Amino acid sequence: MTKNPSPVKLRSQRDKAEDFRALHDEKKILILPNAWDVPSARVFEDAGFPAVATSSAGLMVSLGYPDGQVISRDEYMSAVRRISRVLSVPLSTDLVAGFGTTTKHVLASVREALKTGAIGINIEDFVHATKKLFPIEKQVEKLKGIKKLGEKTGIPLVINARTDAFRFAPGDEGARLKEAIRRATAYRDAGADCVYPMGLFDAASIRVFVQALDFPVNVMVRKGLPRVDELERLGVARVSFGPSACYAAMGLLKRAAREVLEKGTYESLVEGAITFDELNSLALPRRN
Amino acid sequence: MTKNPSPVKLRSQRDKAEDFRALHDEKKILILPNAWDVPSARVFEDAGFPAVATSSAGLMVSLGYPDGQVISRDEYMSAVRRISRVLSVPLSTDLVAGFGTTTKHVLASVREALKTGAIGINIEDFVHATKKLFPIEKQVEKLKGIKKLGEKTGIPLVINARTDAFRFAPGDEGARLKEAIRRATAYRDAGADCVYPMGLFDAASIRVFVQALDFPVNVMVRKGLPRVDELERLGVARVSFGPSACYAAMGLLKRAAREVLEKGTYESLVEGAITFDELNSLALPRRN
Repeated sequence: MTKNPSPVKLRSQRDKAEDFRALHDEKKILILPNAWDVPSARVFEDAGFPAVATSSAGLMVSLGYPDGQVISRDEYMSAVRRISRVLSVPLSTDLVAGFGTTTKHVLASVREALKTGAIGINIEDFVHATKKLFPIEKQVEKLKGIKKLGEKTGIPLVINARTDAFRFAPGDEGARLKEAIRRATAYRDAGADCVYPMGLFDAASIRVFVQALDFPVNVMVRKGLPRVDELERLGVARVSFGPSACYAAMGLLKRAAREVLEKGTYESLVEGAITFDELNSLALPRRN
Repeated sequence: MTKNPSPVKLRSQRDKAEDFRALHDEKKILILPNAWDVPSARVFEDAGFPAVATSSAGLMVSLGYPDGQVISRDEYMSAVRRISRVLSVPLSTDLVAGFGTTTKHVLASVREALKTGAIGINIEDFVHATKKLFPIEKQVEKLKGIKKLGEKTGIPLVINARTDAFRFAPGDEGARLKEAIRRATAYRDAGADCVYPMGLFDAASIRVFVQALDFPVNVMVRKGLPRVDELERLGVARVSFGPSACYAAMGLLKRAAREVLEKGTYESLVEGAITFDELNSLALPRRN
């Protein structure tokens, strides 16, 4: 019996990068679910999403590390590789701030990310430990370097440049929105494929931001975010789950725990659950 | 600043083993939730369960391995260690069939399990790949060896001896129940602290089983299992989640995926979810 070729190998990393990039250019908004382990990624793939991303917060906590850059880059990349190995659709991975502060460190991390099979990255512009924004020109230098790296390796990875200026820049809301736009514009011009203003979720600010950028913008699911069709009308290119699916799964465990401890019943555990065979199938690549 | 001592270190492994054993002797049934990663374990601890167990199916699939003994013992134990590190309550770990077929292999695996900090184990009496039961005397030899190991190391680990006779023994339901009772009785007499007849979930069979054993019996949550108070009346000592919490979490992701793809809304993602700070706190031991 000949072994089936793994679907992971069927499309090259280059093809996947191009497929993923094209999903940002369509009129239709890209809904991008963030997974934190193998089964969450495979559930999303099976549900029909054309690509999957990682949630770094979910992934790190699932391995016993708080969000940020406490986990070692190697351990982080091993987890990304486990997810990449079972996915047939393109995988974009969060890189936090690149596991380092210098452009050299960041580029080394992007190289490691490409080795996992991922074809897209998120990169932040602030230091987790201090919540301080990197100088804009430092971040631009990193993005230009990443863009060049993609050209050099022949894997045209999709760069999602995140800015936390709306959260951490000085000044009032207006000043912070202005700084977020200034940074996102610089990141766009440095070669990013999409910009990701963290903390932006009301329709009015999203409209201002998208119109100022005239470029693919990523927003994150949270309470109060406009529904998908409204985001599409506002011109948003991509809406990602962030850690919300992980928050929701842990919320379910809390409810299930309360139910069994207080009422002695198992409804939250057994209603709407998948089966053993379904769970087991999520450990392996999909057979298309 | 002095570092807080980790709560994990506050109680010795020996104390935890004794605490866990005592939970089986009380009139009150022990509800034991099975986790598969760090945050699922910590959510259960926070919810008030006096002990936590692992779900090997959930744990293995979360790392990209189907259920069974496909994962290496080392990688499995690393994952158990990650969970053990953040828990203050006792942790019991599933050992599948002990990652090997001989008593020597099984004892080596139990030694590794104790090194993770776990103080209880589940051990199966069948070969995953073939679904064939081990000869009863082989399984008895393993259990006696494990019991002796606990005495020798001074960690009186709690042995939950699983039998899959009700699923895989030859004959009709009556014959299989009889064989499950015969095996469980032999495992009890060999030094197990609890017996775990897989596949038993209706009240009538549970009653027959518990009365025949007159010893702590573990049943697993599934659709149709009597509620906790009824199990307690039937004399069941322990009800464990098995992989059900993992099935439920994946079921939620499927619903959330369908909702956002079909309706463009995020209710399943944001309602009843935990927060970022809550998720982040689950990466670390609880501060009591």
